[in-house]
This record gives sequence, structure tokens and C-alpha cells, in this order.
Amino acid sequence: MNDHLKSLLAEIDKAIQGIEPGRYPENLYDPIRYILDLGGKRIRPLLTLLAYQLYHDDVRKVLRPSLAVEVFHNFTLMHDDIMDKAPLRRNKPSVYKKWNENIAILSGDVMLVRVYDLLLEVEDPIVKDVIIRFNNCAVEVCEGQQYDMDFETKEMVTETEYLNMIKLKTAVLLGFSLEMGGLMAGASEPDLNYLKEFGINMGIGFQLMDDLLDVYADKDLFGKQVGGDILSNKKTYLLIKALELAHGEEYDALHHWLTVKDFNKKEKVNSVTAIYDRLEIEKLTKEQINKYFKMGLEDLTKIDVREDRKADLLELATYLMNREK
Amino acid sequence: MNDHLKSLLAEIDKAIQGIEPGRYPENLYDPIRYILDLGGKRIRPLLTLLAYQLYHDDVRKVLRPSLAVEVFHNFTLMHDDIMDKAPLRRNKPSVYKKWNENIAILSGDVMLVRVYDLLLEVEDPIVKDVIIRFNNCAVEVCEGQQYDMDFETKEMVTETEYLNMIKLKTAVLLGFSLEMGGLMAGASEPDLNYLKEFGINMGIGFQLMDDLLDVYADKDLFGKQVGGDILSNKKTYLLIKALELAHGEEYDALHHWLTVKDFNKKEKVNSVTAIYDRLEIEKLTKEQINKYFKMGLEDLTKIDVREDRKADLLELATYLMNREK
Repeated sequence: MNDHLKSLLAEIDKAIQGIEPGRYPENLYDPIRYILDLGGKRIRPLLTLLAYQLYHDDVRKVLRPSLAVEVFHNFTLMHDDIMDKAPLRRNKPSVYKKWNENIAILSGDVMLVRVYDLLLEVEDPIVKDVIIRFNNCAVEVCEGQQYDMDFETKEMVTETEYLNMIKLKTAVLLGFSLEMGGLMAGASEPDLNYLKEFGINMGIGFQLMDDLLDVYADKDLFGKQVGGDILSNKKTYLLIKALELAHGEEYDALHHWLTVKDFNKKEKVNSVTAIYDRLEIEKLTKEQINKYFKMGLEDLTKIDVREDRKADLLELATYLMNREK
Repeated sequence: MNDHLKSLLAEIDKAIQGIEPGRYPENLYDPIRYILDLGGKRIRPLLTLLAYQLYHDDVRKVLRPSLAVEVFHNFTLMHDDIMDKAPLRRNKPSVYKKWNENIAILSGDVMLVRVYDLLLEVEDPIVKDVIIRFNNCAVEVCEGQQYDMDFETKEMVTETEYLNMIKLKTAVLLGFSLEMGGLMAGASEPDLNYLKEFGINMGIGFQLMDDLLDVYADKDLFGKQVGGDILSNKKTYLLIKALELAHGEEYDALHHWLTVKDFNKKEKVNSVTAIYDRLEIEKLTKEQINKYFKMGLEDLTKIDVREDRKADLLELATYLMNREK
């Protein structure tokens, strides 16, 4: 990342430090401070600021409201970790583990209210518009999480269903983050739409890359166990594609590994990966990722500002496309 | 209740039927429809409409946004039932029992977003003010629920702490319901404050009456088991007051019933009630209730509209004060 992006991230981090979610009762507010302090890439508010900077240089007056997308993101993590029974978040105990489920539910609820406090800090004439668009996004994120949970017990998930799920669960919030930056900058309706679509397409590509890295990442760079999704039979893009393409013995072998209760972990990861290899799932997934990144970059091109103003957004997109963890 | 109140309640019920929380995924939206259709007294939107009618007769344009307080109330019930492990809600399975905890968390989250959709339906000039005041209230309701949960494991809860908890958990939402009606009607700042305080004082009295009825209700009218709070050692106003006033043998007897694991239910309820009787807890609680109701009625008096316009709010307050279940 270039120095400008790094300095924006530093400003975002400082502003997050400045968020005062509340004090008492401590069991309600400590978890909010905790999850916000766990870190993370802060991609969403960065997108908001960069979208704003397509039009105006000085981000000071939009920095605080931009945090809304980061607080909302962390709210979804706090509740998702309960639902997904995920004991760890960024290598630390997740909130429901460190405290308990009830506290994670209620702290999350307060966080969602605080998101609206931050959204209310946009300038008066756009408050209503910002909240309407945010609400559409927030509801879609919940829909995506519900589809994801529904998929766990669903026999068959199609590629289309899966792409729709990750669009809702992950991509629309990236889209809104950019759209909100544009809204605060007074961008035109077509520009707002390109910003949103840019974010959605990047987001889908980003999530597909997550699926891919879980199997094909460089172990040393990845930082967590390679093959976790395979071990938990998670319905990722790779598995859905493999189930669609496998026939005969290949299908039976895949089905075996999805149903066997007692197995050697390494053997399962290696065997399923070998099936993916024979079906060329890595190549197919990369093509799909590139398709979405390409569509995203086309959206960026269409935004009606001078090309040189788009350099930072392009830099961030490139950084995200080339990540190895 | 008089015919006017009944007709307002009918309009509220019809408007609630008209709420479209969403369709798919069904596991996300069916629970919202379900909890909204379970009924309930609809006191909160009724308070909003009656506050509005202090100033204007025709409630049509404020009916929809008034539902925000009812949807928010039901959101808190959906999440509270998970936290309190309450399997029943209005004699039907609560959402987390009928579906599961994850669905109850996520459906609740969407409901909270939908609350803001309804709040956005107020007229543009007051949108921001309404949401700011609602957010303060919503955060306090969460604080109240957290204090209530904290009390379960706390050795000693003072009367002041308890009164503050029920104010936050129950009363401030009644206060906001009235305040919102006033806001939509263009009431003055002093009037808004009296409306809010009227609701808060009534709400505290209302919650204390809940505690009282759980022990001293007429079994045939009450509709649920008398003494449930005694059996579960719930830290109610009655118990807190009794622990404060009991000494010597009386205190030991009370402490015995709070710690004994193996007991006859009827004997426990009768024995603890007998202790309450000797300490005159019923009388003390009634005095406290009357104190809050009286303060509430004084707030109502101070509102700067003709006395005859207050008749319906007075009627509702009287109805709530004299309930026997």
C-alpha cells in the first residue's frame, strides 16, 4: 500500500480509538471496545474515504461517519461468531467465548444502535438518504448470513445461490461503504451506482479468493490451517463447483469424504484437494475471481472523475486482488 | 377502555398487519411476522398516538412511524427470550424455541433495522431528532437488560439500583413512545419533557405492579402461576425490600428459602409470602407504585394543552394502574 493509504488507515485507527460506546454496565460496553480494538484491515471505512476523495481532498469532516461501516462490520462479526460457534476472532477469544452468549447478543445490539449514531453525523440534507441506503444494505447482510446458515443443512446448493449468498453476506457492505463516500461527496446518481457496483464486484471476487486461499494458500504466508473448509465440509465455491463437475468414481470419492465420520485430517485435505486438482477447480475459481475483479475495474472506469483521482482506489483494489492471506 | 382507545388499538393492529418485514429467506422473516402476530397490549404505539392527539386529531399520517416503538419492543422480546431462556411468550413458543437461537438472533437484528425504516417515515424536518432520541432510549433499554442479567449473579442489589434498572429496561421506552408522539405533533421542548417523564414514572409504577401481582394477584384473574418470581429467586422489588427490612430469624428464614435446593414449591411460595406479609411488603410496594403514578399524573397536568384533551391519556393511565393481571 502507498503512503497515502497508510496515512488514511492511521487516521481511521485513531478515530476508532476515539469512539466512546459507553461505560456502564461494563459487561455491555467492554465487549464493544474489545472487538473494535482487535484490529482488522479497516478496508470498509478506507473505501468510504477513498470514494469521497474521488471528489474532495479533505476527509476530516467525513472521517467519523465513515466509521459506521466498520462498527457495523464488527457488529456482524460479534453476532456471527455466536451463530457460527467460532471461538476465535483474529487469534483472540471471540466475544461470546471471553464473556458469554447473552453478553455478545446484547453488546452487538448496542453496537448496531451506535452505527446509527455515527450515520447521523453526516450532513443534515443527506441523513435520511444515507440511512435508507444503509438499511437496505444491513438487511441484505442479514439475509446473506441466514442463507449461509441455511446452506449448512441443505443437500444441494447451486453456483447461482452461492454467488448470491456471498454477494449479500460480504459484497453489499463493501458496495455501501463506497456509495456512502460518494453520497457524502455529493456524487451523481450514476456515479453512486458505479461505486456501489465496483464494491459489490470486488467483494464477490474477494470472497471467492477467501475460498480459494483456504485450500491453495502458501502455508507459510496464510497464517491459519490450510484446508479448514475441507475439514468442516463447508459449502465453498470450490466444493459446490466440484460437486457439479465430478462424475462417477470422482463423485463417489468426494461424497465419501463429505460423509465419513472417522478420518485422518491430513488424508482428507490431501484427497479432496487432489479431486479439486483433477477437476481444475483452482483454475475455474481464478477465472471467476478475475471475471468479478474485471467487472469491478470497469465500474471504476465509468465513474465520472479524472482518471488520476482514481489511482488510490485502483491501488487498494490491486492490493486486495493480490493478497496471499 | 373507552371506544376511542379501542378504535385506535384496532387501527394499530391493522397497521401492524400491514408491516412487510420481507419474504426470503423465510427463516429470517417468518419469525418477525410470528412475534408481531402474537399480539400484546400494543400500549406503546397507543401512547404515541395519544400523545400526538393532545395536539392534533387526525392520526393517519403518524400511524406508521408509531409502529416503530412496537417493533422495537418486540425486537427486545425476541432477544430477551434467548437470554432469559424463556420458552414461552404469550403462551406460545418463543422464537428461539420454535426455530432456534441463531434464527432468533438474526431475525431480531433485522427487526432492529426495520425499526429505523419506520422511524424514517416521520416528516423530514424531524427525522434526525427522532432518531437521536430513539437511540438514547434504545441504548438505555439494552443497559437495563444488562443490569437485570448482572443482578442474577450479584449478592446484593439495592433499591436504588433496582429502580434504575427497571427505569432503563421498561420505563424509558414508554417515555420515548410518548415523546415521539409529541415530537411528531410539534410539541414544545417542556411538553416533550413532561410527556417523557409521564411515561417513565408510569413505566416504573407499571413494572413494580408486575412484581407485586406475581405474588399478590388474584389467582383466577392472573392467568399464570402466582409466586413464579419467588420460586426462581428473582430479585424483584419485593425481595430486595424484604432483604433490606428482615432481621434476625426473619432474615435467616428468607435466606434459607433463597438457598435451599430441595423444596416443596407450594411451601416455598407460602413461606416467603408469609415473610413478605409480616414485613408489610405489599403495603410498601403499593405506596411506591402510587408514588410513581402520582408523579406521572403530575407530569401530565403540566403539559400545556387544554385539560379535556388529556382525557384519553388519563383513561389509559388509570386502566394501566388498575390492572389485575
